[in-house]
Order: sequence, then C-alpha cells, then structure tokens
Amino acid sequence: MSQPSYVSKLREILGGDHVFTDEETLVCYSFDATRYRARPDVVVKPTDTEQVARVIKLAYEESIPVTPRGAGTGLSGGSIPARGGIVISAELMNHKPQIHKEDLYVIVEPGVVTEDLQKHLEAKGLFYPIDPASQAACTIGGNVAECASGPRGLKYGTTRNYVLGLEVVDPNGKVIRVGARTVKSVAGYDIARLLVGSEGTLGFITSVTLKVLPLPPARRLLAATFDDVTKAAEAASAIIENRLLPSVIEIMDRMTIEASQSYIGKRIDGVVLLLIEFDGSEAVCDEEASKCMGLLKEDFGGAVDDRVDPDRATLLWEARRSALPALTRVANGVVLEDVTVPRSRLAAMIEKIQVISRNYGIRVAVFGHAGDGNLHPTLLFERKNRDDLKRLEGAIAEMMRACLDLGGTISGEHGIGLDKMPFLKLELSKAGYEIMMNLKRSLDPRNIMNPGKMFYE
Amino acid sequence: MSQPSYVSKLREILGGDHVFTDEETLVCYSFDATRYRARPDVVVKPTDTEQVARVIKLAYEESIPVTPRGAGTGLSGGSIPARGGIVISAELMNHKPQIHKEDLYVIVEPGVVTEDLQKHLEAKGLFYPIDPASQAACTIGGNVAECASGPRGLKYGTTRNYVLGLEVVDPNGKVIRVGARTVKSVAGYDIARLLVGSEGTLGFITSVTLKVLPLPPARRLLAATFDDVTKAAEAASAIIENRLLPSVIEIMDRMTIEASQSYIGKRIDGVVLLLIEFDGSEAVCDEEASKCMGLLKEDFGGAVDDRVDPDRATLLWEARRSALPALTRVANGVVLEDVTVPRSRLAAMIEKIQVISRNYGIRVAVFGHAGDGNLHPTLLFERKNRDDLKRLEGAIAEMMRACLDLGGTISGEHGIGLDKMPFLKLELSKAGYEIMMNLKRSLDPRNIMNPGKMFYE
Repeated sequence: MSQPSYVSKLREILGGDHVFTDEETLVCYSFDATRYRARPDVVVKPTDTEQVARVIKLAYEESIPVTPRGAGTGLSGGSIPARGGIVISAELMNHKPQIHKEDLYVIVEPGVVTEDLQKHLEAKGLFYPIDPASQAACTIGGNVAECASGPRGLKYGTTRNYVLGLEVVDPNGKVIRVGARTVKSVAGYDIARLLVGSEGTLGFITSVTLKVLPLPPARRLLAATFDDVTKAAEAASAIIENRLLPSVIEIMDRMTIEASQSYIGKRIDGVVLLLIEFDGSEAVCDEEASKCMGLLKEDFGGAVDDRVDPDRATLLWEARRSALPALTRVANGVVLEDVTVPRSRLAAMIEKIQVISRNYGIRVAVFGHAGDGNLHPTLLFERKNRDDLKRLEGAIAEMMRACLDLGGTISGEHGIGLDKMPFLKLELSKAGYEIMMNLKRSLDPRNIMNPGKMFYE
Repeated sequence: MSQPSYVSKLREILGGDHVFTDEETLVCYSFDATRYRARPDVVVKPTDTEQVARVIKLAYEESIPVTPRGAGTGLSGGSIPARGGIVISAELMNHKPQIHKEDLYVIVEPGVVTEDLQKHLEAKGLFYPIDPASQAACTIGGNVAECASGPRGLKYGTTRNYVLGLEVVDPNGKVIRVGARTVKSVAGYDIARLLVGSEGTLGFITSVTLKVLPLPPARRLLAATFDDVTKAAEAASAIIENRLLPSVIEIMDRMTIEASQSYIGKRIDGVVLLLIEFDGSEAVCDEEASKCMGLLKEDFGGAVDDRVDPDRATLLWEARRSALPALTRVANGVVLEDVTVPRSRLAAMIEKIQVISRNYGIRVAVFGHAGDGNLHPTLLFERKNRDDLKRLEGAIAEMMRACLDLGGTISGEHGIGLDKMPFLKLELSKAGYEIMMNLKRSLDPRNIMNPGKMFYE
C-alpha cells in the first residue's frame, strides 16, 4: 500500500526508528479492548514533548487526523484511529516519575504504567488510589484522557480528583501548561480538569502532575456471600446509607463468578459476592469492618468472612480483576457496559438489567463497583449471528434509557469514544451537547484531534 | 438619574418588587470585600431558573452586561459590576436544600448560605467540608463560581471536588444541565468542573448538586505556639512531609494575633500560632495528634497544647476567622493576598514576604492555610497616602513574582476577578491565556457575562 506523503516529514521529526508504516504495526494499533477496529496510516512513537508538538503542528497544517494512544486498554474506543491518519503512541514517554514526597505530588510522563507509578509511590509510603482493572497495563496518559477510575472510586474519587496540572500539546501544536503544583489554584479557567476525560479530542497529554496521599497503614477485606444479586445490591446501598465509607464495595453475580472460576482454574465459594475493603489505621479498619459485618449479617442475611487470609484475598481479587477476560471465553461476542446510578438505585438497576436480558434473550453477567453505583453489565452474544446482533443493540439502548430513568449516567468511567456516541444526546440536554460541540470547534478548529469520537458532527 | 430603557422589560419578567433602581440598592450592590467599587444600573432578584434565563436572554439580545452576585463576600472583585448593567442577585434562590442521605448528595440553590447548608447536613450526620472564613454569610452559588475553599482544603480539597452537577443559565440565556448525581460520570466534556471557578463569566448558576461525606465522629485540636513565624512554617511543612493528614493547619503571625486579640477583646497566648485539627474516629485523632505533637515539640521546639478545651477552641477559631476584619482596624487600607506555594516552600515564601515588606516599607501581616501552602499576607497602608499606594502596588507585584518563582500560584482560593487581572499572564503561558480567552469568546460571544473580569480583552 502506498504511504501518505507526510511520512517523510514525520521521519524528519522523529527519526526513522520511531515512525511505523509496516502492516504488523498498523494492525496492532487498530484496536483496543472494545469490538471496534480501524487502521491508522502511520504510527509514531515520540520521546518528548517537542516531538509531539512538531507532529501535531504538521497534522494541523495538513489537516491529518491524530489519535493519541496509551496502552490500548480503553473500553469505549477512545484510542481507535476512526479516521485513519496518525496514531501518536505515548509508550516511549515513560521516564521514572519525579516524586515530590514533601509536597505530596508526582510528575509523570503519559506512558508510565499505572501500577508502576503505584509501586514507585508505595516504596516511599505514598499512595495513588486510582486502580482500573487494567492497571498492570494501562498508562497514566490514557487514565487522564479517559478520567479512569476503579474500585476505590467509592472513597477516593476518580482521576480528576488527583490531576493538579497538565502539560498538553493543543490541536494547533502549541505546548500549554495548565493547573498548578499546589493543591489549591484558581488562576483562570480550570482547563486542566476540562482536559481530564476529554478523550484525546482536545490535545495530547505530555506530562501530568498528580496529587498523591499518604499510604494508609492498614487494609481489611470482608467477603460477603448472598443467594441473590438484588439482595447483595441492597446490602451495598445500605452500607453507604449507614455512612460507612469503605475504600471498595465490589459486586460479582453468579455468572461472573462461574466464568472467573473456570478462567483462573480455582474455586471461589459463594453464589453472589460482595468484596468490601476498609483502609486507614488498624483501629478504624476494625471498627468500621465490625459495624459493616453486623449490618450485612443481621439486615441482609449475608454470610460474611471477616478474616480473609492473604491467599484468599489474592484469589478473590484475581477473580474480580479477571471478570472481563473470563467472560470473553464464555461467548465470542462480549460488550461491557458502564451504567452508573445513584447508589440507592443499585438493586433497581440490576432488576431492570435482568428484565432486559430476558426480554431480548441476551445473557448478561453483572459485576462492578457497587459502592459507586457503577455496574458493568456484560452482554454475551454470538458475533456471527445477525439476529443476536440486532437484539444486542436493542438491549444496550434499553439499558441506557433505564439507567438515565434512574437518575444515572451512561458512562461512569469508560467514556464515550465510539461506543456511547449514539447515546450521549440522550443524557445531555440539547444546550449541553451544543456547548460541548462549540467548545470542541473553538479549541480544535480543523477537527484533527481524535476526530469521529464523542460527538456526531 | 434616568433609568435604562430595558428596566420595564425586567419588571415584566420579574414583577416590580424584584427590580431595583433606587440609589440605596445600587450603592449596596456596588462593592464586595475588596477595595473595588462600581455601580450597577439595575439590581434584580429572581426567584427561579426561568426568570434568570429570561433576564439573561434579554441581556444577550440587547448586549447588556450581567454580573452574578451571591453574598458579596468575595475577595477578588468577582461580584463588582465593572461595566454597570444588571446585577443578578441569587439571594432569593434559597429554598431548603434537598438532602439525599442514602446517596450522599445534596441539591442546593445558589442563594443558600454555606453555614446553613452545613447545619442542615450535620443534623443528618452528613458533612460538607468547604469552610471559607465567611461561611456565615457567603452562599453556595458564589462558592461554586469562585471555587471557594478554606482551612479544610488540606484534607478535603476545594469546591471543585464536591460539585457533581450544575444547572446553569448560559450567556445566551439557555438553561443547561451538566454533570450528574453520581460520583462517577464521564459523559462528554467536564463542563461542570469548567464552570467551577469561572467567576460568573460563563453563566449564572441556578442549582448545584454537591457530593457530601459522612460526618467524622471526632475532632481534635492542637494549638502550637512558636517564637518565630519561619519556624512555625517549617513545622507545618514537616507535618505534611511526615505523612500526617490533619484536616487543618492554620498559621497566624504576631501582627495578626495582636490585631485579633484587640478585635475580639480577649487574650490569646502565643507569639506565632499553628492551629492543627485532626478528624475521624477517636482512635485516629488520638494517634495522629500524638505523633504530630511529638514532631512539633521535639523537632521544632513548639509549645503544644493538646487538650484545648471547647471554650479555648472557640476562642482560637474566633481569633482566626476574625483575622481579616481585625486587620482592617489596624490600617484604613488593607489588601489581602492569596499566594499559594508547594507546602515545602512555605517558610521560603514567608521569608520573601518579610523582605518585600521591609524593602517597600509596607507592613504585612501573615496568616492562612499553612497546610495547603496557601498564605494570606495582608498589606496594611494609608488609603489617602499616594506614596503608600505606589509602594503597595510594587510590593504586590513582587509578591506575585515571588510565589511563582517558588512554583506556586497567584491565587489559591480567591480568584482573579479584578484584583489579579494584571498578574494572570505572569502565571499562564501565552498559549494557556489564549485558550482561556478563546473559550470565553466561544461560549459568550457578546461578552455579556461578568465582562471586564479575569482577562484583558
């Protein structure tokens, strides 16, 4: 296949070794963790901000689509080069994080793996709580672009609560630095937070300043089993209503547990499982875990294991983290949803999911971050079965409406990307959608940054 | 004076009782807590979102400046009607907050007083931690518009960490709803967070959905006295460096303490004071307070009172909260600054302030939120002395440069408004400033919302 004319200019900017047009690379960079696929024309791997700026300036001048990419673990299609053009991979921008222990912040390059950052910090008694299930692979740039979170969102919030400042190459190829290194700053508009979760449509993140916390000295895991998923969901809501604040409340239903068991090849007891973790001082963990256990047993008939030994804790977390890969073995087509409702509506959402599953004849496994009201109902289907695909689309659309009816949002943490584009207008008012489009047009007038995502133009 | 021609239209929208053009009202709405003054042409007090939308639509059609106003306690001139026109006061939009205890959020109208919200929540065992010194008067709409914070910013962050969703009338008079009622949401750009701290320049906030927390069961106050303000600042930095996380570390220097003593008419012991508060369970408070006390005594020679009785705690907080009004009695001209540096640079910043004070011959009292690196150096001068005014301007400019040199920000929590306009460009890169201007122009093409603030056009 012929190469785009601008490839030689990219080689001048980056050197030949960092510009890829071979078939194998192009295929590797054409997908993420969703079912979407699109081939880039060229993949580049810059090593510093200046190279990124020169690439984007070229793209601006020649109106070439640019898709930023971290580790490609995204779950809404954010890193798929929907309109071809250039994929800029952050993978070589991964120098060791600069930890400022005395000021509780760290400066990180976008290609640093989330779990690596956490390990560097933990070695100094510090803590970065954001823990996506893909943390062993995903990178900080992608986390910021998608506003990633994970189980600990319940107590610790999401990526946007930790971003203090950003260096970004904007859609004209200009380097901008926004935010601060201080925990408080109100100097002009909060562009840093606007960029968090903007899915690569407003710029390429080249450096991130993150707030970090002291590492909690202790953790305590409770594993509670229930016969019924609705009961488990009601119990999760009750924990919050009783003003207990665990770091984590995860839920797994029967289908998820069965899939995970066979994926990891080990038995987990329990039909439906809640994993509840407290952190802080030993005394707080004891006190809160004991209150929580009382509530789960007495009010919800849960069987609670409050002395989960380290091996079993590892097993339970392994099962929980492998939920998605495990379910991809159950059917050849899998769609992971991200519906999020106010926490008291969790059981109601699960019931609606069950009704939708029955009505559309689509199997749905349910797991997720119950403590945030953030569920990942996972729809299982046969990829080559047209009838399945049609019913799948119907079931997804109905699930979106159901979570909005319950006062929720169509995406808690995965983003809009390609996957939720048809539904964004359902959630936003017309004026809200227009404001976002307006903003995109004014900051990216040539629509080169991750075009074809989030909005229908 | 003749009334603007649009006043009759405002009376049609709001009824005559809610439209004010009398001299007394216009004077009352021409100032805030800064030294700036500007008269509006008319003041309106809408009671609901629809009225606000109709007022702003009229202003859009006739290109009339609109200045949103909460309680007028702002410290950067945000609510001063710099270009005249209409002041929209939120004071009548103050229905009782709708508390959703089971989901840990509350829906609040903009005119609700911050302290009233806190009391409503505390009665239900809930907690909204944002605590500006003016909390007995300031209102939630203003808090959101300015991204207010206060002593507890150290542990609990600022207003932006609590805003889940907003209803806003945009500069075209359209009602938009952004954000969510869930703790996680990534449906499109984070317009809600962009509006937090946008100082009324992008719309008028008509409803706020705030995340709330369980009320911490216990609090423990330590009062530590030092001979020297630099020593106290070093001690504050060391608390953070040692990964203790109090809810509050406040600092007051000798001049502030003396002024506060004579203002409240009671003696406080101590030359320089650190107020350190821990919250959480009793056990955590005990443990952390004891570690902190050891550190302050042994490493910094502080005299620490760890059993502050409730009366003394009330006295100390009264002294701290009255710092600004107390200092306004010391000189007839007072400028309160808001410089914020990474926490390890606190002592360095205080030393720079002392040098600037000496070099310019301007007395400066220092107090503030040491735990955040957020200082409020307060410059005292004679308003009618031209020479004083000239030296004042020089001292302020040098203070801005000093905090930026230390990696800080020119405003931690008060905003840009009129007061920091000359310095915003010092902090932002040219590209960053342009992005903000670009954004303002695209969202408010007729520049009617709080014009003449933040940016030089």
